[in-house]
Amino acid sequence: MKSYSVIGKRVPRVDGGVKATGEARYASDLGLAGLLHGRILRSPYPHARIIRIDTRRAERLPGVKAVLTGKDLAEADYSLELGAEPAVAIDKVRYAGEGVAAVAATGEDIAEEALGLIEVEYEELPPVLNAGEALKEGAPRVHETLEKNMAAKLLYNFGDVQQGFRESSYVREDRFTTQGVHGCYLEPLISAASFDSQRRLMVWSTTQGTGRLRNTLAATLRMRQGDVRVVGMHMGGGHCGKTRIFPQDLCAALLSRKAERPVKIELSREEAFILNRGAQPTAVELKTGVRADGRLVAIECKLVADTGAYFGGNLVYGYTFGTCLLSAYRLPHFRYQGYLVTTNSGPCQAQRGSGATPARFVIECQLDIIAADLKLDPVELRLKNALRSGDTTINKSRVSGCGLSDCIQRTAEAADWKNRKGKLPPGRGIGIAAYAHPTAGSNTVLPSGYSSAFVHVHQDGAVTLVTGANEIGQGSSTVLCQIVAEELGVDIKDIRISLPDTEVTPFDWGSMGSRTTFLAGNAVKAAAADARRQVFELAAGKLGVTVDELEAAGGQIYVRRSPEKRVPFTAIARVSQLAGSGKPILGSGSYCAEDITERNWETGEGDMGSAFSSGAVVAEVEVDKETGRVTVSRVTLAHDCGLALNPMAVEGQIEGQIQAAAGQAICEERLTQKGVLLNPSFVDYKMLSATDMPQVIPVIVETVDTSNPLGVKECGEGPQGGIAPAIANAVYDAIGVRINDLPITPQKVLDALKERMLKGTG
Amino acid sequence: MKSYSVIGKRVPRVDGGVKATGEARYASDLGLAGLLHGRILRSPYPHARIIRIDTRRAERLPGVKAVLTGKDLAEADYSLELGAEPAVAIDKVRYAGEGVAAVAATGEDIAEEALGLIEVEYEELPPVLNAGEALKEGAPRVHETLEKNMAAKLLYNFGDVQQGFRESSYVREDRFTTQGVHGCYLEPLISAASFDSQRRLMVWSTTQGTGRLRNTLAATLRMRQGDVRVVGMHMGGGHCGKTRIFPQDLCAALLSRKAERPVKIELSREEAFILNRGAQPTAVELKTGVRADGRLVAIECKLVADTGAYFGGNLVYGYTFGTCLLSAYRLPHFRYQGYLVTTNSGPCQAQRGSGATPARFVIECQLDIIAADLKLDPVELRLKNALRSGDTTINKSRVSGCGLSDCIQRTAEAADWKNRKGKLPPGRGIGIAAYAHPTAGSNTVLPSGYSSAFVHVHQDGAVTLVTGANEIGQGSSTVLCQIVAEELGVDIKDIRISLPDTEVTPFDWGSMGSRTTFLAGNAVKAAAADARRQVFELAAGKLGVTVDELEAAGGQIYVRRSPEKRVPFTAIARVSQLAGSGKPILGSGSYCAEDITERNWETGEGDMGSAFSSGAVVAEVEVDKETGRVTVSRVTLAHDCGLALNPMAVEGQIEGQIQAAAGQAICEERLTQKGVLLNPSFVDYKMLSATDMPQVIPVIVETVDTSNPLGVKECGEGPQGGIAPAIANAVYDAIGVRINDLPITPQKVLDALKERMLKGTG
Repeated sequence: MKSYSVIGKRVPRVDGGVKATGEARYASDLGLAGLLHGRILRSPYPHARIIRIDTRRAERLPGVKAVLTGKDLAEADYSLELGAEPAVAIDKVRYAGEGVAAVAATGEDIAEEALGLIEVEYEELPPVLNAGEALKEGAPRVHETLEKNMAAKLLYNFGDVQQGFRESSYVREDRFTTQGVHGCYLEPLISAASFDSQRRLMVWSTTQGTGRLRNTLAATLRMRQGDVRVVGMHMGGGHCGKTRIFPQDLCAALLSRKAERPVKIELSREEAFILNRGAQPTAVELKTGVRADGRLVAIECKLVADTGAYFGGNLVYGYTFGTCLLSAYRLPHFRYQGYLVTTNSGPCQAQRGSGATPARFVIECQLDIIAADLKLDPVELRLKNALRSGDTTINKSRVSGCGLSDCIQRTAEAADWKNRKGKLPPGRGIGIAAYAHPTAGSNTVLPSGYSSAFVHVHQDGAVTLVTGANEIGQGSSTVLCQIVAEELGVDIKDIRISLPDTEVTPFDWGSMGSRTTFLAGNAVKAAAADARRQVFELAAGKLGVTVDELEAAGGQIYVRRSPEKRVPFTAIARVSQLAGSGKPILGSGSYCAEDITERNWETGEGDMGSAFSSGAVVAEVEVDKETGRVTVSRVTLAHDCGLALNPMAVEGQIEGQIQAAAGQAICEERLTQKGVLLNPSFVDYKMLSATDMPQVIPVIVETVDTSNPLGVKECGEGPQGGIAPAIANAVYDAIGVRINDLPITPQKVLDALKERMLKGTG
Repeated sequence: MKSYSVIGKRVPRVDGGVKATGEARYASDLGLAGLLHGRILRSPYPHARIIRIDTRRAERLPGVKAVLTGKDLAEADYSLELGAEPAVAIDKVRYAGEGVAAVAATGEDIAEEALGLIEVEYEELPPVLNAGEALKEGAPRVHETLEKNMAAKLLYNFGDVQQGFRESSYVREDRFTTQGVHGCYLEPLISAASFDSQRRLMVWSTTQGTGRLRNTLAATLRMRQGDVRVVGMHMGGGHCGKTRIFPQDLCAALLSRKAERPVKIELSREEAFILNRGAQPTAVELKTGVRADGRLVAIECKLVADTGAYFGGNLVYGYTFGTCLLSAYRLPHFRYQGYLVTTNSGPCQAQRGSGATPARFVIECQLDIIAADLKLDPVELRLKNALRSGDTTINKSRVSGCGLSDCIQRTAEAADWKNRKGKLPPGRGIGIAAYAHPTAGSNTVLPSGYSSAFVHVHQDGAVTLVTGANEIGQGSSTVLCQIVAEELGVDIKDIRISLPDTEVTPFDWGSMGSRTTFLAGNAVKAAAADARRQVFELAAGKLGVTVDELEAAGGQIYVRRSPEKRVPFTAIARVSQLAGSGKPILGSGSYCAEDITERNWETGEGDMGSAFSSGAVVAEVEVDKETGRVTVSRVTLAHDCGLALNPMAVEGQIEGQIQAAAGQAICEERLTQKGVLLNPSFVDYKMLSATDMPQVIPVIVETVDTSNPLGVKECGEGPQGGIAPAIANAVYDAIGVRINDLPITPQKVLDALKERMLKGTG
């Protein structure tokens, strides 16, 4: 492997200082002259027609500067993609908590008081509250144009599964379910907007994608992209829950246009839970055929996912589910039907890894069942089936530099699988699961699948990286600065990085789908290489050699074969720009995956992209048979991320995913009653806190991926998929009963134990 | 001449709307969380040693968060260029009004109160208050290291003037003086700074040069350029008075570092007058030899200019004086000595055109004297000597596309010179003057003489121009947007422009020395051409032709020979970036003058640059012999700006310069008594108001300048030089006496008339 000076090092976060001191400015800190405060009135009903809204008393309240209702959106300058949530409900509300009116006032208290003065007359409609009901003949329609409430439908069909099942020695069928979970980012949702008299809009929003939000705002408000400016600020997490536009982004913009003053809307934690955009509840039927030795022959799968009331044409959940079913193992026959169904529940989109968690949950649990049925070691079974470098998947994904087998072996070793599997005391269990995950930037999941970057070398040799990539807490700024430092052969301390601002930073869609290190990283590498070329050209002249003979390291540009012939990077920066009339050193670069072919999301045909990450997880649990409570005591996770640009950041990603996925496995769940969310707070919605965390043993497995210049793969979503099934398998190992419904709550454990007892005694 | 669609049109200001509505944000509008307000305590003495400063009582005042004195600047992290003004005086004060201490407090009133609590003990030193005194043997030294208070010394010596005078038929010697004038920008001086715990500095300042300020701040505070971010805001004028760092920029930064909170300092109008940075008072000895027919043979000139107490290594005034002496006429022998002398007066730098006004004043007045002495028509005399296209000046300036003769003829025609010269009623007069001016960006006057720009084509075809160029009110944003629209063949309405921000916009030194249209304009053209190339490559593929066959106009990319084969610009923008994974359209460009050679400011040797503007002015005045009051009634000005990108903007520049230069000619003057400024307000410092303005007849003379891609020359400084001498010559024509000291005040007119009367009767 190539040797690096800055890349691959445990470099501390470049934004650590300002975040530790509290100086980093978040959307909440934003103050603007003449700022108004916005609040949104929400429907108490999950499904109701709006008969009448009377806002006159609210408008007369002193301090109220603008009131927005659905009739404001009927104007010519507002358009809505099918399934996208409007700023406020236009004719009917589709989930409990949907906005029906918004107010901008000189103070938050006045805005709140004004909400109470708005009279809304509803006609309640029968709601559909789960996907099964929604698909039934004659079910109420959530969106009038969608037959059977079908938001999206996917069918992947490769090989011949029926033939496959006939060739199988053993066929297993199971049904699995998972419940909706919320993103649980620490920073709540905030949006501020300022329209000027030239009808130009400036927006500050807690979004994972400033570029994407800019584009959606422009499309929805029928504006030119050049007239919408989204300015990024520091972010307190997203976890896929802030990838798309929110109604409050639109409300802030429209209220500002109406009031002719800037408007800021800060949602409460309760509202963030209600608006959700988290993981979709799923019901999965899975049928798998294997040979006697455990080799996979055929998988057939049907997914029914509840996307909630709004989905905005979102296929990603169903697509990643299908992709992640296919991603880890060699498989000749595969058929997958995915149904995304709209209901009168809070809007869902995705939680870290999108459909990966349910996909890996069902397949890894069923593999465990098969291993038990066939008396095979779960580790051996996975190794036998694992994709290897050089393979091409049935749907034409080329696998380059796959570390999956390594990950399975090293996880098993690190977790002492051999000595612990089947040998733990009663109530304790160990389980394994594997995964592989597409790096979203490497396929065409998203339009505008490119990133771009500029590198400014200042006259004194300091360097500023200008990128539209969103640092949402994952550490991408640090990694991107490392790439620049490495390319230019300077210290990480010499690199500064900008925050995104769609007016001045080059386009980037945002941080989502594990695309930042891959796309923005490679774009930054290209921009830095462009700057380096300019530096080398000047250095070559000075040293009397050709550009090809030069290297950059330790702040010096030197001749490869005679390193004593050198010139400091800072001297080149100074001379080039200050001698004569000067010439700037400005690097520019962009990147999109190189081997994109046309593909069809709905059929799964075509190349699913390169740069698959993979890995394996071993979890240990303790189950208290008295209370049913599951404690995750240890998680060992080996992840193949290609080249680990910053091992500390990779470990951070692994730790964060264990926190989230273990929660999804044992406690996180959006609980509703008649469509109304029962637990919209961190008190009632249980997630793993620091004291609940298991011991974490992260193992980084580096491989050489030749599909992209940096040789990187994603590390922020794949691991998430493998953790819940490893825990579920460990629970089975601990108590001998299998719970196929996430989360594995104490009640479900007690019920399962009771059922087994009744069966055992029956 | 090439035909254009957007260039050359009278396009209204792109920033007109937000300025008219008041939405444009100026530094004064800036609010920051936790902002402190700064005030500066100023010395009452022009020259005094600081014996003791006691700030303890001020520090104890509730609300005071930081106090800064000279001893804070002795730290290792502060450096000062020779002659640069420190944040506050370190050991002694050098002019009345120099800062001695600065305070940051939670309110302006508290900061003001704190100033009153600071005790300063001074030891008064004898001041030197004019350049003549300062040069005398034994004069007190303003800066200890400067012998004879000499700040800078220039000697240009071309040909052999002694030989020239011997060859001349007529030799004339005169002495001229001009007084100090102030920039009179409408927006006063404001600086805000915020230091963070990572020792990174963010600054907002009323500066003409965000890039230059960033560099100077970094050098003075010994920081990396990447750690200093200067953010541009809308500007209310500069007129050369805001080109360099001011003490309040440093005070705000240092107070912020000390207080660990952002600090904003808003100076009063009085303080702006005291800090000055306006035109230098000058005394000029000029000797000119001509042949009998009026052709120039030799010029010898000695300038003594008073730079005031601080000058920061500033040679520009002396350099432009020398250049502008040389710039308009053919001349075989030339010798110029320039002395910039430091005194205990308020710091001077330049007023629009820098040394051009005194240079053109002395030479154009003396030419008028010579014309009278030799009975030559002043217009003919100038035509006879005017530089013409293809000439090379004695110091190697190549003259390409010179419109000077045209300008002289067309001005004379438009002003009806023939029928008015010598034929006006008593008390009325007419005068002419000519000028030529270097476009500063075309020579090496400033280090970093380059500009750079990015052009982002958004996915819907809207375009954003990202530039660090400073729009200070002159209309450069409009002109730069026109250049992009022209290059891409789209409407001006499709173009947006960013404000400068040294962190994200590519480097630009700032708006000064008439460099913006020339340097930034050509950089913007290069960036737009780069974007166009990318658009053409895509369009060529779509239309099945080569890039060379394409043109862009009217929002279409079309085949030159078959214009019906076309594709909309917006379609290319969309397709290129949204098909597949997309690819950004990002243009990047920079520009520096192409024919720079090494030159020596101090000797005037080398190429003075290309892209000389030129022009001629005819002024008419009325002189009230009872009161001595001069009224400028009409000014006709023909200016050769190469290609006029926006005639309305060129006319605006001409009008603005007439307002300023007519003031310099008849009323503007910084009056002092014992070094203390007597008239630091718009009530006491008289400049021309709207009702004082003469009738203005602007004439634009376009020429083809091949020295730069756009074919542009400066238009914001050259005309300024010609106006005052035209007025002085008109005054002579009106009353028959010559006043060689600017401004021509009523008192001077009365004194001159009285003297002539005494002589006449004597």
